[in-house]
Amino acid sequence: MEHATQVLLDLFLIFASAKLLGELCERFRQPAVVGEILAGLLLGPYVLRIVSHSPIYEGIAEIGVIFLLFTVGLETKPSDILSVGGVASKVGILGIVLPFALGFGLIFYLGHPTLEALFIGTALVATSVGITARVLGDMGLIQETESRIILGAAVIDDIIGMILLAVVSGLGEGVLSWVRIAVVAVQAIAFTLFLAFIGSPVINRYARTIDNLKTPHAPLVGAILICLGLSALSSAIGMAAIIGAFMAGMVLAEFSGRYHLVEKAETICAFLVPYFFFVMGSHINVAVVANWEILWLALVITVLAVVGKLLGCGLGAWSLGRKGALIVGVGMVPRGEVGIIVAMLGLKLHAIPESMYALVIFMSVVTTLAVPPVLRVLFRDRPAAREPASIESAMERR
Amino acid sequence: MEHATQVLLDLFLIFASAKLLGELCERFRQPAVVGEILAGLLLGPYVLRIVSHSPIYEGIAEIGVIFLLFTVGLETKPSDILSVGGVASKVGILGIVLPFALGFGLIFYLGHPTLEALFIGTALVATSVGITARVLGDMGLIQETESRIILGAAVIDDIIGMILLAVVSGLGEGVLSWVRIAVVAVQAIAFTLFLAFIGSPVINRYARTIDNLKTPHAPLVGAILICLGLSALSSAIGMAAIIGAFMAGMVLAEFSGRYHLVEKAETICAFLVPYFFFVMGSHINVAVVANWEILWLALVITVLAVVGKLLGCGLGAWSLGRKGALIVGVGMVPRGEVGIIVAMLGLKLHAIPESMYALVIFMSVVTTLAVPPVLRVLFRDRPAAREPASIESAMERR
Repeated sequence: MEHATQVLLDLFLIFASAKLLGELCERFRQPAVVGEILAGLLLGPYVLRIVSHSPIYEGIAEIGVIFLLFTVGLETKPSDILSVGGVASKVGILGIVLPFALGFGLIFYLGHPTLEALFIGTALVATSVGITARVLGDMGLIQETESRIILGAAVIDDIIGMILLAVVSGLGEGVLSWVRIAVVAVQAIAFTLFLAFIGSPVINRYARTIDNLKTPHAPLVGAILICLGLSALSSAIGMAAIIGAFMAGMVLAEFSGRYHLVEKAETICAFLVPYFFFVMGSHINVAVVANWEILWLALVITVLAVVGKLLGCGLGAWSLGRKGALIVGVGMVPRGEVGIIVAMLGLKLHAIPESMYALVIFMSVVTTLAVPPVLRVLFRDRPAAREPASIESAMERR
Repeated sequence: MEHATQVLLDLFLIFASAKLLGELCERFRQPAVVGEILAGLLLGPYVLRIVSHSPIYEGIAEIGVIFLLFTVGLETKPSDILSVGGVASKVGILGIVLPFALGFGLIFYLGHPTLEALFIGTALVATSVGITARVLGDMGLIQETESRIILGAAVIDDIIGMILLAVVSGLGEGVLSWVRIAVVAVQAIAFTLFLAFIGSPVINRYARTIDNLKTPHAPLVGAILICLGLSALSSAIGMAAIIGAFMAGMVLAEFSGRYHLVEKAETICAFLVPYFFFVMGSHINVAVVANWEILWLALVITVLAVVGKLLGCGLGAWSLGRKGALIVGVGMVPRGEVGIIVAMLGLKLHAIPESMYALVIFMSVVTTLAVPPVLRVLFRDRPAAREPASIESAMERR
């Protein structure tokens, strides 16, 4: 078959299979992401070998994840984070320290390289805002105290997770030394703070000019420019490109409502993101995982991931009483895309082996699958206050 | 610099330069497309050499043009075409026959290969609906009789142009014979008619199921699937992929309003299409064009392109009186993207040389640049009936 036809056919097959399995997962009340990863695993080079790796799909996947994190950033208003107050901060921070310590500790204890242990620890950190919000919204419980704390804490831990990722990915290429850790951390934190506190006012000052531009879709075009520019910049100074994309979104979060940026970014994501999760799944080498030692380790890591969030976040939310703390702890368990992104980066930098990559995906998928039924049981005595809300409105109310 | 960083930086530079020069063109009341092509010419490998060719950008450009034609299709309701009546059909058809005959005749007369002559003839055919509508909308004259005839005729000539392109691109790879021309033409027309008359009712019957899907953005996802599927299919049976994309849009045109498909497709286009025009510009080899013989030929072709539409379309619209016929003729002159797409395809199939490619771009740019001022003069005695309309509303009123 001609090359161009092959590419188009693959683009169609990837999108179709990801969406088909995603729809199936949704029917079983599971996140579509799982189906999209599964599609990549099945059609990819390690199982059915229908679609092979290609720079074009990898490129589209990379752009897809940049837009995904950009969208998450658009839903993260700096002012909201400053106002969520004590409990959410405690939940967020304790929910990072414990899983990171447990993950890093285990892998380091088992004698793996320090960098590998750092990557696994980081992959255990970030709760997936998207998945958590979607589960709570689907149950119509987004306005409960516990739900709001979970969402606030998830945002805080996303940001700290991003800084951690910046540090770890900065180390991925260089030599490991405390001086270098300090330099990368300071650089990452400075970049974050600079954008968080300087970015918004600067955008604010020049926002008016966007209305004077003659280019069609000028606000969207401006947003894409900032997103691509900060992604390239953060990649150039040695951090992950997605951090820049996330920051770009956060800087623009205050304007996203006025220009419908979230809806527009979601429209672009609807096309591009399935390629990211498909490619992600296509990198899972089943042969490497089919091994008792690895399966055993995957199970242990998954247990640590669950215990770390339950204890850490539960402790942070202790003021809510035992039941409330348990709900918050469970709600923070799903890891989803950010953990997988960390592992993917580790794999690309050759900081973690294929087996560890598969293990993180296993952990992400299991924690994500396990939470919805448990939350449903925990919330069973509270009737839904209102019609199930969409993610967007849940985000707006946060 | 690391490869991933280089790719991100290029993605940013391409988008930024295309949008910057596009905005500049808009300020001088010229279509943004011209600026985007110019950006590719300037930054590309033949002038400043800042961005070099890469499979990733070419891939994004290809997907961009697929979405562009999909969007044009979404704005082309089969029922509208059936209702535009006699004048528009006469304008459309005569406006195809004359430019094609002139272009083919000249190149064939000069002793070039028949296939090359066919490609150049085809490139002279299609009026750009987008550019014509944009110019008329900007002047607030979209409801004038002449404007409506121009829009209707432009749609008809887009469709016939697509069929011609299907025939010519089918010939691009095979041996040239009248039997083969007939087979390809029948195949292309059958594909077109099948989709136009069978596609819509089939979609109509299954449209309800889309509302039962649990996948977020299900209508958009379904539309993208149909777009990618028909693009791959039309590529597989030997036609240009964009024809399938255009057909996919046309089949869905009746539903685009209900699900806001045009706005969503335009959002995706806002990101992807600049890459297409940039890549297009980056393929113009300035060294090849800087040659009196080629420049001379470019001028002659451009004159033929203008005369062909003026005479052909003017003749078709003769019933409107001399002034009306002149307005319709002038309004049909801009070629824009479809002509360039034809040339690009010819270049890729090695059916036309680099010099002919550059020549078609020259013709497209000049015809596009020349029309707005002339139309403004011709319409100067008629005050704008209302506020300048957006393209979308212009399309809806059509």
